Amino acid sequence: MKIIDGGVTSAKGFQAASCAAGIKSQDRPDIAMVYSAKPCTVAGTFTSNVVKAAPVLWDRKIVREDAEKVHAVVVNTGIANAGTGSEGLRLCRETAQKTAEALGIDERQVLIGSTGVIGPQLNMPAILNGIEKLVPGLSESREAARLAAEAIMTTDTHPKECAVEFDVAGKTVRLGGMAKGSGMIHPNMCTMLGYITTDISISKDMLQKALSDVVADTFNMISVDGDTSTNDTLIVMANGEAENTEIRSEDGDYAIFKEALFHVTRELARMLAGDGEGSTKLLTCNVINASDKNKAKILAKSVITSTLTKAAMYGNDANWGRILCAMGYSGVQFDPELLDIYFDAEGCKRIHIYHDGETVPYSEDEATALLKHEEVIITADLKEGTAESTAWGCDLTHEYVSINADYRS
Amino acid sequence: MKIIDGGVTSAKGFQAASCAAGIKSQDRPDIAMVYSAKPCTVAGTFTSNVVKAAPVLWDRKIVREDAEKVHAVVVNTGIANAGTGSEGLRLCRETAQKTAEALGIDERQVLIGSTGVIGPQLNMPAILNGIEKLVPGLSESREAARLAAEAIMTTDTHPKECAVEFDVAGKTVRLGGMAKGSGMIHPNMCTMLGYITTDISISKDMLQKALSDVVADTFNMISVDGDTSTNDTLIVMANGEAENTEIRSEDGDYAIFKEALFHVTRELARMLAGDGEGSTKLLTCNVINASDKNKAKILAKSVITSTLTKAAMYGNDANWGRILCAMGYSGVQFDPELLDIYFDAEGCKRIHIYHDGETVPYSEDEATALLKHEEVIITADLKEGTAESTAWGCDLTHEYVSINADYRS
Repeated sequence: MKIIDGGVTSAKGFQAASCAAGIKSQDRPDIAMVYSAKPCTVAGTFTSNVVKAAPVLWDRKIVREDAEKVHAVVVNTGIANAGTGSEGLRLCRETAQKTAEALGIDERQVLIGSTGVIGPQLNMPAILNGIEKLVPGLSESREAARLAAEAIMTTDTHPKECAVEFDVAGKTVRLGGMAKGSGMIHPNMCTMLGYITTDISISKDMLQKALSDVVADTFNMISVDGDTSTNDTLIVMANGEAENTEIRSEDGDYAIFKEALFHVTRELARMLAGDGEGSTKLLTCNVINASDKNKAKILAKSVITSTLTKAAMYGNDANWGRILCAMGYSGVQFDPELLDIYFDAEGCKRIHIYHDGETVPYSEDEATALLKHEEVIITADLKEGTAESTAWGCDLTHEYVSINADYRS
Repeated sequence: MKIIDGGVTSAKGFQAASCAAGIKSQDRPDIAMVYSAKPCTVAGTFTSNVVKAAPVLWDRKIVREDAEKVHAVVVNTGIANAGTGSEGLRLCRETAQKTAEALGIDERQVLIGSTGVIGPQLNMPAILNGIEKLVPGLSESREAARLAAEAIMTTDTHPKECAVEFDVAGKTVRLGGMAKGSGMIHPNMCTMLGYITTDISISKDMLQKALSDVVADTFNMISVDGDTSTNDTLIVMANGEAENTEIRSEDGDYAIFKEALFHVTRELARMLAGDGEGSTKLLTCNVINASDKNKAKILAKSVITSTLTKAAMYGNDANWGRILCAMGYSGVQFDPELLDIYFDAEGCKRIHIYHDGETVPYSEDEATALLKHEEVIITADLKEGTAESTAWGCDLTHEYVSINADYRS
């Protein structure tokens, strides 16, 4: 597997376009389209929030119930189309109809994504006008993918893309994706918005299985603020243009594909966590030597979601007591008297901060220097088994509060 | 029941003292003692955190296992004595021994509370010196109670006290308490530190039952930051000096006492939530007309713990979508299409903001004016039953981040 520079247009036959449709008050790109002329097998995971946005309901029905393949995704920012009742669903369908008409396909071959403020109805004149502008602008270029990744941003500070290339039985396959999400990030069953395209040939069942498997260890292991969005959606579209023999079982080809999908989803997930609203650093927590994986997951996630730990990381404060506290209230049992905690960062000497239930003397200056890095890694060793898990989050900053106290204005 | 000005010395026979022992670097009161010459029946609830501070282990054993009555509580701030291993337990016992010696009682008649930084061992010369100073200063005065409530503060901005007076079968009974807690507040089974004294005569079983019952709807329904502390402790001491016939069953006298205890615990809990670190307002969420009480509790708590809702409240932003979202990811089912949401504040016209799954037009100016009040009440009407619950929290502010990014320095 080779990491390549790319995004949603890396895989053969996928095009993208984006433009400023005027959905947001500012004159910036706010709508994007991804399109494959060849129909795509599709898999998706969606928010577990009881309150589901209209586009989630629309996409989920297509992905889970309708057997047909899809051709396109349209994503708008500015308005989430959540909490909008039956009118919201009607406007979502109208968006799909307009897209289908412009592309000469069926409305149920169009997936919709929306992100932004919860509550208001979509600004349809802007959306419809945007779609008209998007279709003639569709392009397979690298640039088109990047602009699409930028158009779906809300409070994100930079676009998130990742792409890889690998061989399946002599055929070259590409897989690339884009994602957005900065606040209201605590995916459960999936994340905010993520779109991955690939030219592999794979059955729908195998595509969904690979996606569901990798999401459990990637997008579902990040959190910015503990708030699981109403709009979380992660879609993978596979158009088969790589012309490999279709993957229909969990064979060697499937393993190669799943490894590539894992890489792309993990990188996108890490990018979301590291670009959490107002964050200054990526916070990675490894829980190792646990008796079972689920326990390791719960503990790792409890650490990276702890408000107090996040604030301490912002202050470059090696306040390991908050890590210990967050593990303690996570809801799972472990023996604090067996626990070791370490801090790591690239190029820094590891700091062993807690051993067998008591503090280890360390230099506050060295700890502060380590915590100033862009990625801080906390490792908690339970010494009770062999299972492990990793979760990703970010620090809690003044800027997070500023962004969210004033998001709508 | 009459609300009176008072605290831990309101009930007959209870004395308090406090002083600056030098545990904290700043020259401010950091140790307090509450004492009753007459032995007290005692009840308590403690943190559910797997990592329990040494004083929690000490108190819990006395309250749950030892039949004897207690005489005193000693509380220090500055150091939490958590994550301190067997040495921490030894120093906790040494504190109790010194107190017992000074008061002429048994060491297992002394409860200990600690709050502050997790990790360091207690500064014993300061603690022992402080205890020596406290004993001669014990006083039944109103002022002594207030100074004790101040001495146990950490990042609290004001002391929390509440007291009531009521009659039980012709005898006047008093019940008063103090509490502290501003960060790491998400009590589960109890809160940070709370001490309530009463001169009622009541059996240990009935005292514990009343406490456990009221805590479920008061201290366990508040959150500042979602972090359940290692030190949460709530203690009630009853010395019987009111000379009522001892309460031994759930009779009418018990109901009167429980109502008084509910009032004092609820007021102290509300004070903790309203004085959450950096907060500018108290956030109250009522969930009404739920199919069962547990569901109402989970929903109310999910709203007041939502980081995004808390940030919106700080910004006086009627961003009801975040309330809807927080209810949706709480983990319980409800029908969003039946939901109504209201905002209330003292002296303001109620704002009906969400009705049957869709937004209701409202004035942003009126909403902003309402949200600027010191207490903002969010009511969510599920229209599915008759159960209800209330939770209390606070807004998330720049000041919260400042306090917690820099707590140890």
